Amino acid sequence: MYNIVQIEGGVCAAKGFFADGVSAGLKKNGAKDIAFIYSEKKCRIASVFTTNKMCAAPIKHFRQKGNFKTNFVLINARNANAMTGKAGIEDINEVLEALTSTCQDIENPVMSSTGVIGVRLPKQKIIEAIPLFDLSAKEPMNAASAIMTTDTFSKSIAFKVSLEDGSSFRIGAMAKGAGMINPAMATMLCFITTDAKVKKSVMQEILDEVTVTTFNAISVDGDTSTNDTVMLLANGRSGTYEREAFKEALFKVMHFLALEMVRDGEGATKLVTYNVTGARDVREAEVVAKALSDSLLVKTALFGEDPNWGRIASTVGASGVEAYEETLSISFDDLCVYKRGELLFNEAMEEKAAEIMKLPKFSISCDLGVANGKFTAYGCDLGYEYVKINADYRT
Amino acid sequence: MYNIVQIEGGVCAAKGFFADGVSAGLKKNGAKDIAFIYSEKKCRIASVFTTNKMCAAPIKHFRQKGNFKTNFVLINARNANAMTGKAGIEDINEVLEALTSTCQDIENPVMSSTGVIGVRLPKQKIIEAIPLFDLSAKEPMNAASAIMTTDTFSKSIAFKVSLEDGSSFRIGAMAKGAGMINPAMATMLCFITTDAKVKKSVMQEILDEVTVTTFNAISVDGDTSTNDTVMLLANGRSGTYEREAFKEALFKVMHFLALEMVRDGEGATKLVTYNVTGARDVREAEVVAKALSDSLLVKTALFGEDPNWGRIASTVGASGVEAYEETLSISFDDLCVYKRGELLFNEAMEEKAAEIMKLPKFSISCDLGVANGKFTAYGCDLGYEYVKINADYRT
Repeated sequence: MYNIVQIEGGVCAAKGFFADGVSAGLKKNGAKDIAFIYSEKKCRIASVFTTNKMCAAPIKHFRQKGNFKTNFVLINARNANAMTGKAGIEDINEVLEALTSTCQDIENPVMSSTGVIGVRLPKQKIIEAIPLFDLSAKEPMNAASAIMTTDTFSKSIAFKVSLEDGSSFRIGAMAKGAGMINPAMATMLCFITTDAKVKKSVMQEILDEVTVTTFNAISVDGDTSTNDTVMLLANGRSGTYEREAFKEALFKVMHFLALEMVRDGEGATKLVTYNVTGARDVREAEVVAKALSDSLLVKTALFGEDPNWGRIASTVGASGVEAYEETLSISFDDLCVYKRGELLFNEAMEEKAAEIMKLPKFSISCDLGVANGKFTAYGCDLGYEYVKINADYRT
Repeated sequence: MYNIVQIEGGVCAAKGFFADGVSAGLKKNGAKDIAFIYSEKKCRIASVFTTNKMCAAPIKHFRQKGNFKTNFVLINARNANAMTGKAGIEDINEVLEALTSTCQDIENPVMSSTGVIGVRLPKQKIIEAIPLFDLSAKEPMNAASAIMTTDTFSKSIAFKVSLEDGSSFRIGAMAKGAGMINPAMATMLCFITTDAKVKKSVMQEILDEVTVTTFNAISVDGDTSTNDTVMLLANGRSGTYEREAFKEALFKVMHFLALEMVRDGEGATKLVTYNVTGARDVREAEVVAKALSDSLLVKTALFGEDPNWGRIASTVGASGVEAYEETLSISFDDLCVYKRGELLFNEAMEEKAAEIMKLPKFSISCDLGVANGKFTAYGCDLGYEYVKINADYRT
């Protein structure tokens, strides 16, 4: 038995972790634009990176280091340091060398970036801001807001996990959202810190597993930016650990942040849960759930609050999985609008369905009636604001 | 040797074909909403239908007939007759029986539909409009405008093909566009008529081949509506045929109509050609070309006339094909903005690229530098108008 309680402190909640955000002049108006996470003790690291073939320089730099521990992560906004070749990696080395020569406590630092692709890192500005770092700062909100790009709010969470033997560990995190997420490919970054005493291999295994039903359920991974990063740092300071408790706490952290990202999708006004059941297998259920959450026609119907279940049926049919008109059922929350070939829809039902679609949160459920595969994905609507943000993101 | 010349007459240009459009009261304001194509002589038929598992009743009805000839196609707008089960097919039978009992000359008629999914066919209105059909009418423009839905202009074309021996045949067509086409899944319909004396099996083979580089290059097929249909009717009236000439003429018809559909994409202001070269093989080139033409981030950058080549690189990288930062090159028309790892982009170049993006037609070329696979796809931008049209298409 164990107990998990939400606590304050975000990415600094776990023992021995510090973080802050400062302005290096990358964002306009002097907003905070670089952040750091520092741990008193070197951390084991687990990570999930983008599958994009054009992955950014910081990801290449991280991978080149092989197996290592670190006590420092530097994160910048406004510049992705992607498509910058060898020069991009040299820029990182130069910044990180400046960092370690300024502060002897920093060992093996790594970097993470988000912003515009194909422009060299403004390394001089970043190097000049290094003296602003205070490694004893516990300012999780500053850090979380420094890494924001088109996010409208910062994303941060932490939990304390109490085990049966009276010991406890903490896990906290900050993230930046992913625009409209897949297929928009705006970058998602997530940094998770814990004082649990967990082995690197176990930590990686659990992170991979939890990613499937959290960040991958909002389709961040499949069709992915050059910079997508989830990094889990464990400094072992609590001296304790329990696998199931750790996994559940990590799920809570990542699930919360994943939904926060969808909720903050560019121009999004609704958070929609897609429950797909009755598919041939889990994989086919996942294909359908993601096809629905990615469909432009479904997204615009959500924005228009139009209970156009025909577009849902068509998207299921076009997704390529085993599906039949005669076995499919579709519901908005608990309201079934199409049941195994039966056209239930009428004016009264349309009114009810339209009421549900006015809610900021609701679910769309599709039972394929084929077998038992199921998957839940999360999506949002697409409106004018999305077009506006993305038609001139760079300018 | 042969000679191909564009002529008037659209879907009625070939000998022995007649067509018209009338109003059955399905569209508001008395606009034409049902069309027919009639041939004096029964036609061989080749066809390409949607791969959507929820394919509409008219497609099921067509397939149930097996191998057959027809001299009549009835097309309605405003109702897709999709997700309507057995009742949907019965509705078609009822309409077509009313048709053949009114007019003895009609044999084995088939139907095609486009519009809202999940609503029973308004068969009574259609049946009541049958007496308005004049089988001797040659009104290709009426027919082409009757099948329009969100199209802003009707789409029609015809060619005369003169062979070396002095004989000639004709080929004509009408089509309705596909909204934003893939991934929007608004229906595309295309009806092609010819008096060439061509065998059914040859005709199907050539149609399949030409579809790949025309309608499939605008991604209508992969992620597809419940009703997508290309139908080719040949009545043999010219008594002549030559394979290469026929294939080239069919390509001209379908290529023209495919580009007209993209040009008329919902809210589209630009027609963009995506030339992908240097891919591992043709299939990988196709994957990249379609990933680019489908990418929301690329589409919105086009709308914003923002030469954001980083989004193009990222989309290439996310498409899953073999690609490398060091071998990729990207051009807007003839302006190369990224060349095999070299960051060429500067302010002057950005201005030039932005000028190109202001054009109503331009190309984006990606050379992957891996091998020799190439594919060309066509796409358009995505702006406010698209959201507006699709947020309340039904109402």
